[in-house]
Amino acid sequence: MTVEELDLLFNPRSVAVIGATDKKEKWFGSNITKNALSFQGEKYLINKNETEVFGFETYKSIKDIPNPIDTVAIVIPAPSVPAVMEDCAEKNIKTAVIITAGFKEADEEGERLQEESTRIARRAGIRFVGPNCVGIFNTESNFGLTPYLLTKRGNIGLISQSGNLGGYMIRRGSDRGLGFSKFISSGNEADLNFVDYLEYLARDPNTKVIAAYIEGLKDGRHFLEVAKNVTKEKPVVVLKVGRTGSGSKAARSHTGALAGSDSIYDAAFKQTGVLRVEEIEDLFDVAAAFTRQPTPRGKNVGVLTIGGGFGVIAADACERCGLSLPQLSPQTIEEIDRVLPSRWPRSNPVDMVGEGSLEVYQIIDALFGTDDIDSIITSGGIGFLSSTTSGEEHARLMKIELEMMEGLMRRMDEEKKPLILAALSRNLELIKELEKRGLFAYPTPERAVKVLSYMVKRGEYLREDYD
Amino acid sequence: MTVEELDLLFNPRSVAVIGATDKKEKWFGSNITKNALSFQGEKYLINKNETEVFGFETYKSIKDIPNPIDTVAIVIPAPSVPAVMEDCAEKNIKTAVIITAGFKEADEEGERLQEESTRIARRAGIRFVGPNCVGIFNTESNFGLTPYLLTKRGNIGLISQSGNLGGYMIRRGSDRGLGFSKFISSGNEADLNFVDYLEYLARDPNTKVIAAYIEGLKDGRHFLEVAKNVTKEKPVVVLKVGRTGSGSKAARSHTGALAGSDSIYDAAFKQTGVLRVEEIEDLFDVAAAFTRQPTPRGKNVGVLTIGGGFGVIAADACERCGLSLPQLSPQTIEEIDRVLPSRWPRSNPVDMVGEGSLEVYQIIDALFGTDDIDSIITSGGIGFLSSTTSGEEHARLMKIELEMMEGLMRRMDEEKKPLILAALSRNLELIKELEKRGLFAYPTPERAVKVLSYMVKRGEYLREDYD
Repeated sequence: MTVEELDLLFNPRSVAVIGATDKKEKWFGSNITKNALSFQGEKYLINKNETEVFGFETYKSIKDIPNPIDTVAIVIPAPSVPAVMEDCAEKNIKTAVIITAGFKEADEEGERLQEESTRIARRAGIRFVGPNCVGIFNTESNFGLTPYLLTKRGNIGLISQSGNLGGYMIRRGSDRGLGFSKFISSGNEADLNFVDYLEYLARDPNTKVIAAYIEGLKDGRHFLEVAKNVTKEKPVVVLKVGRTGSGSKAARSHTGALAGSDSIYDAAFKQTGVLRVEEIEDLFDVAAAFTRQPTPRGKNVGVLTIGGGFGVIAADACERCGLSLPQLSPQTIEEIDRVLPSRWPRSNPVDMVGEGSLEVYQIIDALFGTDDIDSIITSGGIGFLSSTTSGEEHARLMKIELEMMEGLMRRMDEEKKPLILAALSRNLELIKELEKRGLFAYPTPERAVKVLSYMVKRGEYLREDYD
Repeated sequence: MTVEELDLLFNPRSVAVIGATDKKEKWFGSNITKNALSFQGEKYLINKNETEVFGFETYKSIKDIPNPIDTVAIVIPAPSVPAVMEDCAEKNIKTAVIITAGFKEADEEGERLQEESTRIARRAGIRFVGPNCVGIFNTESNFGLTPYLLTKRGNIGLISQSGNLGGYMIRRGSDRGLGFSKFISSGNEADLNFVDYLEYLARDPNTKVIAAYIEGLKDGRHFLEVAKNVTKEKPVVVLKVGRTGSGSKAARSHTGALAGSDSIYDAAFKQTGVLRVEEIEDLFDVAAAFTRQPTPRGKNVGVLTIGGGFGVIAADACERCGLSLPQLSPQTIEEIDRVLPSRWPRSNPVDMVGEGSLEVYQIIDALFGTDDIDSIITSGGIGFLSSTTSGEEHARLMKIELEMMEGLMRRMDEEKKPLILAALSRNLELIKELEKRGLFAYPTPERAVKVLSYMVKRGEYLREDYD
C-alpha cells in the first residue's frame, strides 16, 4: 500500500509549492521553487502575499487551485503548517513533503505542532516526508522537491536521515561522477519512515544499489523483516553513525531520537546482510562498485601493478581487510610470461615492471581465466599508452584501449569477477569513458581494496543465505 | 659533508643526460631529456648514436664536453653503466642520478653490475641516487632529472623508496593542489640512502614538512639518531609498508631489501617522533596541514557544523582517533548565543542549525578565544554566502569572506590552534584562494579529524621531549 502512495510522491502529474518564493535570501524556498518550476508536469505556486513568483502567477491557497494536485512541498514557518495541512486535507491531497524545520527537533512547541500536523494528515490519508528535511528527487522524471540541484541519472537510491548531509552527499556524489535514481531526506519521520523508503527503493527498477545515512531506526523489528528481503535482491550500504559515546550524544542532540546501542545495530546489519561502512566516503566507494560490478565468488584477489610500490600497499591492505592473495598457478605464470619481460617476479601482486602498455589488458584477461582468482584489482597501466600520445595517434590508441576495456567488462560479467581500478595514470578522457560505462576508478589502492572487501562480504552473505 | 654533496645534486650549474633521447617509446629517457632541456643552467646531451636530440646537438661521451659538469643523469641499459661511470670518474663528475633499472632488484648479473658501478663511484668520489629510480627534482630552481613533470613550488619534501609510487605521489599531490620543495626517488640506494635525504631535507630551508614512502631502512641506528633530531625541527610523516605478512612478502620481491619486523619500525617511529600514517592518502592529508598550521597544545576539539549530520560523523571520528569534544564554557555559549538563533543546541559539536553565512566566522573566532578548545574543525558555512550570488554582489561577498578567513588565519597563528576545514560548500573559487594561502580543505569530516589526530600526536611528542 505504502509503495503505491510513494509512487505518487515520486511520479506526480501535478505539484504545488506552498510557500513558493523567488527571494534569494530564502535559500530553501527559492531553490525548491526553481526546481518545481523546471518540472515537466503541471506545477502551481502558492504564496499568501505575492501575486507573482519568478514571473509565475501564484495562488493564495492550495484550495484555490481548480485542478487536482498529486503532491505538495511545504516551505512555510512551522506554526502555519497545521492550518495548511487542513487546507491540503480539504483539497484531497494525498502526498506531501514538509521541508520546514522547527518541529520536534526544536522544542516542545515544535513537538506539539508536529503532532497536530501528523494527526490532520493521518485523518485525511495524507502521507508525508519530513518535516525538517531537504526533500526528495527522482532523476528519471527530472522531478525534485528539494533545494539541491538534481544529479545526473544513475542507479544509486539514496536515503539520508540528515538534511545537510543529504545535500553534501548529492554534491560529493556528483563531483565523483555518480548518478542517483532517487533521493530522500527523511527528516523527523513523523509519518513515512526509513523502512518505507527502503521498501520503495527495493521495488524501484531504476535503483540497483541502496545507500543510506542512518542516525537511528524507530522500528527495529520492521527494519529486520524488510532489510532481510531487500538485501537478497539489491545491495544495501549504510553509514550508521553514533558508534561512539560522543557520536551518539551528538546524534541525540541532532534528531532527538535515541541512537540505540551500537552493537544491536551492528548485529542487525550483519544478520540482514546490510553492509555497514565506516566512513562517509566508503558509502560512495562501495555503492559505485555495486552499480555495475558482479559479486565475487570468494576472497582470492589478483593484484596487478605497474610497479612494486602499489603492489606492496595493496597487499598490506588486502591482508588488513581479510582478502587473500593466492599464488599464481603455473598456467597463469606461463600466460603472463608470454607478455612480460623475464624479470617480472612471477608472484601475486603481478608486478609489470614498468611494461604496462597494452600488456595490462592481456594480463587481466589471463587473471579472469584462472579459477584461483575471484577478483582483480589493477593499478596503473590502463590508459597509459594513449595518454603519452596526441592527435590522430592518440585517437587511434584511445579507441584500442577503450575496446580492450569493453572486452574486459564482458569478461568480468561472464566470469562474475569484479575488476576494480585504482590509481590509474592521468588519462582523464579514458576514465570518463569508463565511468559512462559504470566502471569507477578509485584514487588509491587502499580504497579499491576496501571496496572489494565489502563485495566479498556480500558474496559470503548471499551464499550462506542460500546454502 | 653529504649535505654539501647533495646540494650540488639539487642545485647544479650544469647537467648532462647520458642516454638522452627524443624517441617517444623511450618514455623515461625522452621525458628526462625534456626536463633537462628546460633547465635554466648549462645542459648537455650525450647519445652515442644520434648527433641531434630534440634539435639539440649531442656529444658521444661525457668526456667530450669541454666544460665542467656538476651532475649527470644516467638512462642507458644497465650493462653499459660501469663503463659510463668510468668516463664520469675521468671527467671528475661529483654527483649522478642513475635512473636505469636491471640492477640488484633484477638478478645476480644486475647485482654484480650495481656493485661494480658503486665501486667505481666510491673510488672517484661520485655520490649517486639510485639505481632503479625515477630521479629527483627541486622546484625552487625549476630543475629536475626525472621523467615526471615538476610540481608547483611548495613546502613538502618527498622521499620515495618506490619509483612508480613516487610518480603517483607527484601526480596525486599536484591534483590535490599541493606543491613540493624537493622530490627524491631513492631506488636501490646503492650509495646515497634514505637517511642522507632525510638529513638533507631537514636542513633545506624550502622544506617545512618531510613526507616519505618507506619499504625498508638499511641502517636503523643511523636512522634513529638522525630522525630524533629532524623531528624536533620539522614534522616527518611516513607511510611504512610491509605491515602485514602479505605486504612484507610483496616488498621483498619488489626492492629485495628485507622489510624487517614491523613492530621494530613502529617502536622506532614512536621513539623518534616520526608520524606513521596508515594509507597513502593520509600522507598528503597530514603533510598538507603541517605546511601551514600550528601544532595544537592539546586534544580538545571544537567542531562547528552547518547541520547535525556532520557533527555526529565528526564526533564519532574524534572519539575513534582519541580526540575530545569538551563541553562549551558558559562564556563561549553566550558569545555564540549572540549570533545563532535560540534553537541551536548549545553543545559541542556546535550545530549552526542552517544559519551558516557570516555567523560561521564569528563562531570560529569565539572558539579561538576560549582555553577549553585547542583546535577547530569546521564543516560547511565557509564560502556559502558568496557561493549563492553572482556578478558584483558575488565579488563583494567573496572579498568579505576571504578577509574574514585571513583574519582567522592570523588568529590561528596567534592562538596556536589549527583550523581544519572539511566538506565545505562548493565554493571552489574560495577554496582555491585558501589553498594559495596554505589552508587545505578536506573532502570529508573523517579525514579532517584523522589529520588533526596526527597533529595532536606531534604536539604530545614535542611536549614530552622538552619537558
